[in-house]
Amino acid sequence: MKFVIDMMGGDNGVETTIGAVKEFLKLHDDVEFFCIGNVESLKPLEGTPRVTIVPSKEVLKMDVDPMEAMHKHEASLNIAMDTYIKEKCDCLVSAGSTGALVSEGVFKIRRLPGIKRPCLVSPFPTVIKGKKFVCADLGANIENTSENLVQFAKITSIFYRLAYNVENPKVYLLNNGTEEEKGNALMKETYQLLKNDSSINFIGNMEAREPLNGECDVLITDGFTGNIFLKSTEGACKAMSNLIKRSFKTNLLTKIGYLFSKKGFKDMSETMDYKSTGGAMLLGVNGLLIKAHGSSDVRTFVSSLKIGYKLAKSDVVNKIKENL
Amino acid sequence: MKFVIDMMGGDNGVETTIGAVKEFLKLHDDVEFFCIGNVESLKPLEGTPRVTIVPSKEVLKMDVDPMEAMHKHEASLNIAMDTYIKEKCDCLVSAGSTGALVSEGVFKIRRLPGIKRPCLVSPFPTVIKGKKFVCADLGANIENTSENLVQFAKITSIFYRLAYNVENPKVYLLNNGTEEEKGNALMKETYQLLKNDSSINFIGNMEAREPLNGECDVLITDGFTGNIFLKSTEGACKAMSNLIKRSFKTNLLTKIGYLFSKKGFKDMSETMDYKSTGGAMLLGVNGLLIKAHGSSDVRTFVSSLKIGYKLAKSDVVNKIKENL
Repeated sequence: MKFVIDMMGGDNGVETTIGAVKEFLKLHDDVEFFCIGNVESLKPLEGTPRVTIVPSKEVLKMDVDPMEAMHKHEASLNIAMDTYIKEKCDCLVSAGSTGALVSEGVFKIRRLPGIKRPCLVSPFPTVIKGKKFVCADLGANIENTSENLVQFAKITSIFYRLAYNVENPKVYLLNNGTEEEKGNALMKETYQLLKNDSSINFIGNMEAREPLNGECDVLITDGFTGNIFLKSTEGACKAMSNLIKRSFKTNLLTKIGYLFSKKGFKDMSETMDYKSTGGAMLLGVNGLLIKAHGSSDVRTFVSSLKIGYKLAKSDVVNKIKENL
Repeated sequence: MKFVIDMMGGDNGVETTIGAVKEFLKLHDDVEFFCIGNVESLKPLEGTPRVTIVPSKEVLKMDVDPMEAMHKHEASLNIAMDTYIKEKCDCLVSAGSTGALVSEGVFKIRRLPGIKRPCLVSPFPTVIKGKKFVCADLGANIENTSENLVQFAKITSIFYRLAYNVENPKVYLLNNGTEEEKGNALMKETYQLLKNDSSINFIGNMEAREPLNGECDVLITDGFTGNIFLKSTEGACKAMSNLIKRSFKTNLLTKIGYLFSKKGFKDMSETMDYKSTGGAMLLGVNGLLIKAHGSSDVRTFVSSLKIGYKLAKSDVVNKIKENL
């Protein structure tokens, strides 16, 4: 299996990506890496078996204009895309700019036949142990049509079925109320299209306080709203974790309490830890492109590599193509 | 001070509203209540000092069409509005349909001069003890123009200043990135208007994972996105609380842990408890209308009454009028 890694993307520099590649090599002996980046910075990887360093001269900024990004042929993400094609790789991972990944992905790797827009999807944890749901679009797009949203529902349903072995994934539309007539113009229109599409197991609208309860498999929304949903959830979970940690430090008794309940809390934080599910897939393009969290640390980046490995093994892109 | 209460709105029936009125009467001796509802159901309040029961025959459903609601003259919310005007009340509280409250509010109580659309605002807790921020609009509208959003920023800034004694509240726009050029067409347009309005202390865009960290005072967004932000945050906090409780029940050691750390956890849950901040105010109308949470219990409804009391005492509606 061949992975190509944009070593330069992300906020935390090459130490993170180098650390993650090294760790992942220990876990799997059937993967080889093409590591794209500044040759000087990647020195620690030199001579590592199953690693090919491919030099790049530029790094795209996190807020780069996607159109501008396409002209920076020497940037690590662009060379990663070229390498993906040239070496017939199975997976590309980058923690860099989402906008650039989407535009480069569409431009170089191309969309799947019939798909107008790709979408970013990622699994979310729920309060039900082991149960995850997948939300699309988490921000590959800023504005979407109802036709886009129906396509997201189709490809994400196929993705969910393949990734979680669920025959008929339950699809919900993220909305401001559960009744059929709720929502802005886009959501009202999308509701009707989803309802009348027999290839989608559409259940109805879902309010934003519900998904973590585990009833839904596939949650559909436009890229702007998906971004708000993802980050609100992330922010609230993080705030709660911080408050819990602070609570434990209150006094000697709470510190003792922590010692006694540590194990339970480890379980809890793992259930809700966005770091262990980190990594969104760009669905709808003719390749396996993984967007790792911009602020990835080694552990998060490794879990993005793990997601890529699992999806590449299951040949997800070809299976979606066959099922479309 | 005169309060009018829609006793019939909300999911949990009159026991909740009756319980809340009784409890509130004990806390404040300067308030009298007009309680609107079914006379039979309100029997337990009969003869209570400082309580006038005003009969109503109908109850608006939570999903009532706002236009239809206006024609149901015998509905508890409509009679509450009429009573508010007739008795020159200081505050109206309802846990019923948001849509109906907004349309009735605009139709009967009227908008403040120059204000095109009212907005629902509510305080959110943050990880900084005692610090709250206020978000508008939480769902009085489904779709907004940039002009609406600038008006929300203006009236919510005045509201924040009055409610929290902060001279120049820091205003942020909820967006999918911090850079100036981020967002959909509405957010880009609003950014420019806010930036060029010297009456607003506009700092910039804020991503949805940030507000709970306490940096922002006033968070501006359209009604659809605000609803998603509010409910995502609520859902995530609730999921975390449930997981914490479950963690404590894991085994004997974690149960002992709970006994030791109980106090700290009480602090934490109070910080993040949406029940104790429950109640959004409809800002931009010529009266003090409070929307209590649809699923209010007695405690939540009492806190909505408390918010109403505090805002009525500070004469917030007239002060906003003066400041506009």
